[in-house]
Amino acid sequence: MRDELQHRKNLQKMLEQVTVLLKKQELEKNLVHKQQQPRHDLVESLLFKRHLVELQQKLEQFHPADIAFVLENLPLEQRMIVWQLVKTEHDGTVLLEVSDAVRKTLIADMDNHEILCAAQHLDSDEIADLVVDLPKEIASELLISLDSEDRAKVQSALTFPESTVGALMDFDMVTVREDVSFDVIIRYLRRLKELPEHTDQLFVIDRAGNLKGLLPLKYLLIRAGKTRVSEVMIQKPIFFYTNDVAREAAQAFKRYNLISAPIINIHNQLIGRLSVDNIIDFINETSQKEILSQVGLSEEEDLFAPFWVCAKHRWPWIALNLMTAFIASRVINIFESSIEQLAALAILMPIIAGIGGNSGTQTMTLIIRGLALNQITTHNWLRLLFKEVSVSLTNGLLWGSVVGLFSYLLYKQLLLSLVMMAAMILNLLVASFAGVFIPLILEKLGRDPAMGSSVMLTALTDSMGFFIFLGLATIILL
Amino acid sequence: MRDELQHRKNLQKMLEQVTVLLKKQELEKNLVHKQQQPRHDLVESLLFKRHLVELQQKLEQFHPADIAFVLENLPLEQRMIVWQLVKTEHDGTVLLEVSDAVRKTLIADMDNHEILCAAQHLDSDEIADLVVDLPKEIASELLISLDSEDRAKVQSALTFPESTVGALMDFDMVTVREDVSFDVIIRYLRRLKELPEHTDQLFVIDRAGNLKGLLPLKYLLIRAGKTRVSEVMIQKPIFFYTNDVAREAAQAFKRYNLISAPIINIHNQLIGRLSVDNIIDFINETSQKEILSQVGLSEEEDLFAPFWVCAKHRWPWIALNLMTAFIASRVINIFESSIEQLAALAILMPIIAGIGGNSGTQTMTLIIRGLALNQITTHNWLRLLFKEVSVSLTNGLLWGSVVGLFSYLLYKQLLLSLVMMAAMILNLLVASFAGVFIPLILEKLGRDPAMGSSVMLTALTDSMGFFIFLGLATIILL
Repeated sequence: MRDELQHRKNLQKMLEQVTVLLKKQELEKNLVHKQQQPRHDLVESLLFKRHLVELQQKLEQFHPADIAFVLENLPLEQRMIVWQLVKTEHDGTVLLEVSDAVRKTLIADMDNHEILCAAQHLDSDEIADLVVDLPKEIASELLISLDSEDRAKVQSALTFPESTVGALMDFDMVTVREDVSFDVIIRYLRRLKELPEHTDQLFVIDRAGNLKGLLPLKYLLIRAGKTRVSEVMIQKPIFFYTNDVAREAAQAFKRYNLISAPIINIHNQLIGRLSVDNIIDFINETSQKEILSQVGLSEEEDLFAPFWVCAKHRWPWIALNLMTAFIASRVINIFESSIEQLAALAILMPIIAGIGGNSGTQTMTLIIRGLALNQITTHNWLRLLFKEVSVSLTNGLLWGSVVGLFSYLLYKQLLLSLVMMAAMILNLLVASFAGVFIPLILEKLGRDPAMGSSVMLTALTDSMGFFIFLGLATIILL
Repeated sequence: MRDELQHRKNLQKMLEQVTVLLKKQELEKNLVHKQQQPRHDLVESLLFKRHLVELQQKLEQFHPADIAFVLENLPLEQRMIVWQLVKTEHDGTVLLEVSDAVRKTLIADMDNHEILCAAQHLDSDEIADLVVDLPKEIASELLISLDSEDRAKVQSALTFPESTVGALMDFDMVTVREDVSFDVIIRYLRRLKELPEHTDQLFVIDRAGNLKGLLPLKYLLIRAGKTRVSEVMIQKPIFFYTNDVAREAAQAFKRYNLISAPIINIHNQLIGRLSVDNIIDFINETSQKEILSQVGLSEEEDLFAPFWVCAKHRWPWIALNLMTAFIASRVINIFESSIEQLAALAILMPIIAGIGGNSGTQTMTLIIRGLALNQITTHNWLRLLFKEVSVSLTNGLLWGSVVGLFSYLLYKQLLLSLVMMAAMILNLLVASFAGVFIPLILEKLGRDPAMGSSVMLTALTDSMGFFIFLGLATIILL
């Protein structure tokens, strides 16, 4: 009985099945080559193809999203073998599902005709997503091949910046007028034969295309057939403009548990729909981007790209970090003679710098999160700064004493211990100010506060940590 | 026209409106106190209450999720004033929406009767979420107040570990038999009068409660009334077991664009439903947790908690980082005499340690992401290790030369430059091995590879960086 149903598919297992079949095929190919004797062509190609046919049958059972997963996680050569076996009707959907870096490798392998075929199975909002990654001439050929209505939709979708609601919009919606009865609507829906995916409600518009309200689909089932739309429709729905910030729309979907929402233009005309599957994709992509950008990687990082491509991707990050490390090292250089007189300073200085960086990163993470969740206002940022500074002062006094005690046990120099303690308090204060102000200033400048902020913070806490500790030591001890 | 509709609500504005009203009320309270003369009681209390009444009217227009947002972002004292004004019927929903830390402060302010009232408006899966945060005696009183069916549901929901599908389950579903016609179902739905939120499909079960298939709600609208369920139902739906990993269910919802999915027990009996709103909440919570746990904070961090509570929350992180910093400093201590002889070593050593930490964190972020997305298998981890080591070697040679050149320009010592270069290559290799193995080992040990991994990595790259650089310098230069 259980086998009749389909459990959530096991991705690891799917990937393994494909890999095993690819390996078998590889092995036999090598075997034939090693035997050196040219066999009969037919036999040879049959042997080659046996596992590929089996593989193709496997792939046909896979959901396009799962094919995308498998393609993303195969090395380039094997990826191309599998890509050739995917049915053309799935090509478009798979291309949309894979990451940007992998999409480029797949498109490079397709000729113009294949690309145009793949696009035939896509909606206009999906074509818009694909078009940006196509070579220019194929992109324009593709646009010409569309009918004028679809072409207009694709072109309008292409005009919206990536972080806006417009970029997530689709056009799959059913509209009704407010003066019709449910019986009429049901007859209309039966003629349509199919409803767009994720249709949880119909959009009510007037003759001019203005949004008047929403009609949840379930009303059609639980209310009598002679009910009119205007009697029961939701008259104050949550809607979005195309230029609304996508991140805020995602938060609205989460807060109000939405499945779909209308998108209107500034003239209040309904022009599209935002649906929860696009929101989930957006949330996933954003959080991936955030995690990667914090360590200087782009979302396009392909786990299986050739190593020299990966190496090159990391150059800006290494260069940036080397630069800040050099600056910190120049700060230490100022106190070269102090270190020559008292090597203990060199031994203890990384403690002060390190703890400042760690504590500042905590503060900064809270502030960045607060900004992303709209928690920080002109009314409360000063209160937050005050709190973070108080926390740093408290922890500086407490853990500064601990550090002072330890260094006293090691070096038996009371003054050195006091310098450690004072430097730790001061650097924690620097860290808390930096942790609050760096993201706030980046946000004010219209930049993403998460990007690059941690490099700036540690550059500051390292340099200042060394400067404060070595400076105090030079003044007080030497 | 536009005002008739409701735009996605502006959270910042809502928060500001509340803050302004609270401030006005505060001001007037102070004014009355300052005048020192006891006014007539009635006038005084009227003045006090005027703004509160206005505030209450505002709050009544807010969605419970927005009230939760406002409560989360007010300092404790103001939070309590607002909480008193929230209508009892919303109490339960608001409690579910706020973060754990804020929920505790709100519950502490309610008496037993208020808590029981709040729970009356909740479903059994929601009560299960709330019960864990209640004082024990109220929790059991609440359970007793439920009817036996609901109590059984709450108790079963309480048994599922937080990271499983069972913990996200709700019981809001409509079931039908496979031999009935659409006309019969529609009559049945009309009698129900209301369908559960996010009902995009009905669950088809047999007499024994076994899941037989799914019936999308839209089929009822687009197919003829005499159609039977068995003719059109989806016979191989994607389903989940209660003990499936929640993270994988979330990925399945994303891949297959699901709105809801059935949850069954090992006997194939339908026991609950997983719906997209719970998945979105889960994704949000998980990514929040991930970002915070990387810097040693818990998801329960309340931005407006008193500063000494925050200070205490950060002790384990400071203690941990101080410990690793001390270990690194002990490594430097081994080479005290080398530093006394050549202070340049102390000036250059942070560069080697720092760049190792940054590069290793990049590698580790990719591996942690790969593990989370199921991308890393027994077939490919060795290939990934090899790639990361190659990348480190390449970048070590390239940027090691750059670093060597710079230090030659500064110190004009060829051997010192060669030591810098060699130490950089070696520490980048250490970093790439650590970046691959730390998360893989944590995962193998059944722990979350994201938690604590970056502390371990930087502890290693710092200590090894100092050891390699100072060790090589001592052998070659001194």
